[in-house]
Amino acid sequence: MDERFGLDRRVRLLGPIPLDSGRGFAPVEIAYETYGALNADAGNGVLVCHALTGDQYCASEHPLTGKPGWWARMVGPGKPIDTDRYCVICANVLGSCMGSSGPASVDPATDAAYGMDFPVITIADMVRAQELLVGHLGIERLHAVVGGSMGGMQALVWASLFPARVARAVVIASAARHSAQNIAFHEVGRQAIMADPKWRGGAYYAENDPPAAGLSVARMAAHITYLSEAGLTDKFGRRLQDRPGKPGAKSFGFDADFQVESYLRHQGLSFTGRFDANSYLYITRAMDYFDLADAHDGRLARAFASTKSRFCVVSFDSDWLYPTAESRRIVHALNGARADVSFVELASPFGHDAFLLDNPELDRVVSGFLGAAA
Amino acid sequence: MDERFGLDRRVRLLGPIPLDSGRGFAPVEIAYETYGALNADAGNGVLVCHALTGDQYCASEHPLTGKPGWWARMVGPGKPIDTDRYCVICANVLGSCMGSSGPASVDPATDAAYGMDFPVITIADMVRAQELLVGHLGIERLHAVVGGSMGGMQALVWASLFPARVARAVVIASAARHSAQNIAFHEVGRQAIMADPKWRGGAYYAENDPPAAGLSVARMAAHITYLSEAGLTDKFGRRLQDRPGKPGAKSFGFDADFQVESYLRHQGLSFTGRFDANSYLYITRAMDYFDLADAHDGRLARAFASTKSRFCVVSFDSDWLYPTAESRRIVHALNGARADVSFVELASPFGHDAFLLDNPELDRVVSGFLGAAA
Repeated sequence: MDERFGLDRRVRLLGPIPLDSGRGFAPVEIAYETYGALNADAGNGVLVCHALTGDQYCASEHPLTGKPGWWARMVGPGKPIDTDRYCVICANVLGSCMGSSGPASVDPATDAAYGMDFPVITIADMVRAQELLVGHLGIERLHAVVGGSMGGMQALVWASLFPARVARAVVIASAARHSAQNIAFHEVGRQAIMADPKWRGGAYYAENDPPAAGLSVARMAAHITYLSEAGLTDKFGRRLQDRPGKPGAKSFGFDADFQVESYLRHQGLSFTGRFDANSYLYITRAMDYFDLADAHDGRLARAFASTKSRFCVVSFDSDWLYPTAESRRIVHALNGARADVSFVELASPFGHDAFLLDNPELDRVVSGFLGAAA
Repeated sequence: MDERFGLDRRVRLLGPIPLDSGRGFAPVEIAYETYGALNADAGNGVLVCHALTGDQYCASEHPLTGKPGWWARMVGPGKPIDTDRYCVICANVLGSCMGSSGPASVDPATDAAYGMDFPVITIADMVRAQELLVGHLGIERLHAVVGGSMGGMQALVWASLFPARVARAVVIASAARHSAQNIAFHEVGRQAIMADPKWRGGAYYAENDPPAAGLSVARMAAHITYLSEAGLTDKFGRRLQDRPGKPGAKSFGFDADFQVESYLRHQGLSFTGRFDANSYLYITRAMDYFDLADAHDGRLARAFASTKSRFCVVSFDSDWLYPTAESRRIVHALNGARADVSFVELASPFGHDAFLLDNPELDRVVSGFLGAAA
């Protein structure tokens, strides 16, 4: 049995990774899972990249929440990303908090948590760490890199930075850069965390008393951007919350009278049980820094100049966080680079979150694209 | 000289106002300004209603910020709301913090600030307080009630609650109800304030150490909703902030690297110098409670059943906070009630904030509507 493969894997890779900031980072801890068997020619590896608050548990139970994997409906035997055919790899991104190196990790140089001494990283730095892992697994060329939201950004960077190692890239509900509005919402979240006195400049690990209130507000603000206005209206409208013994009524106070208030508060609170506030700062920063055209004089097509990958780009019509226009921009750039790209805008009432939800059309698009010859 | 008219007026009216919560409220302090002279028949009064964080200083310098009035371009001699023709009245709403009764006011029963003992109020309660004032000024019937955003909600309520007292209502960039998304954004702001340890359950006045950090985050989140995505991109895009001695560059830290971050932080901080956090809680609550159809079995047209006013409804195409669809809903209801209504959607790149900004078409619409025979 090859210990590199299976559930709940961890590996320490020496690196160092050359970070975009100019620093190097080593050693690199990576927590990951694999599902399905790697072929003898190691040609069936599919890397699944997770979003801002996601993790490596895409198809198995989350160890803290006990919930099914965040993409269990997409990844598994007979599913669109079919683990009977592919060896699926999903790794916690650099900077996160589920086992890969991040601000909550212990710095071997000091034996204390990094906190804000953790280097500021970028999406490309996350991909560099993944590339170390893929090499460690003995995979020369991935059958595909697949991701939604920040995962889609990683798929784009993979194809741009390591063109020889990616046969296919699937980019769902994503963008090649963060817009001013995207940055603005993230900045609100960061300010909410840093305004919490318990944040203590990021050095809250020893006290075991994290800035949960600030992180909860950050999550609430972000969560609104994941849903569409119409979706919120359908799901909650102005319906009032029932209380023990009495039906919904205005309290003329500041309790959660409306169901949408109660829902948001729950989203905020439950998030603090599974996520580290400093990781939230670092990963939102990486996303805000993301503009794939930056290193190419602002010309996105040049980022794909040497690409050999086939691309599949998917957007959702009600996604206002990464709207279809951003996907079209990617497609135009790929066309400009004469890359092979298919694009589809899917209908969904669920806004940005649609990529995580049941959507038979998305399933067909993904499985069809992965199954086609490269 | 009639002391009831002029700049920086204050009056204590006995009331009590019958609040929607079932409580009564008295005495009612109202801080207001008037511009222009009231005709002998008191028929040229125009009430201007302000938005969430607005105040009575619509056409004169703000006493705390030193900035021109928030609607100085709309209200004045020869301006669209022409103070050579009309006697314009603008009053700080009940619950606010610029002199009208609100949570920061001293409760005469206890000689201490109300804090969270201030009653939870509604938009209709604000209008009831204004109606006392209008009576005090000797005005039987207003030539017009005019407002944008929350001010438009007040104009709608005026026409619904006091149909005999309103000849014309101008409703700009507004809605007849708060949507689930509107409520959600406000709830984020309230949670940000209440999560700040300095909020102290609202009892922070004695210490003179208010929850500025929480209020600042609340303002930042709200501010994003006042601007359009395209407007933010035009104004800031991904441009980096210049720093003393060096041009814009990524800091690979958590300073405000992007201009949009710096702008938002400034919006948040400067707001805390002029606004009370508890007032923010109370007024957002009033807006979230607002659904004019509520008292009419959910049928908005019935809210206008006995109206005798003429209506002018204006929306902006890039306003995603109170989108045109909400204005159309008002217009349909007014049509259903056989009311006299004109409607226009104006083009503007500036999102919800457009109603405060230079817009010659808006000027023409407002002055034309006010000048036409009722």
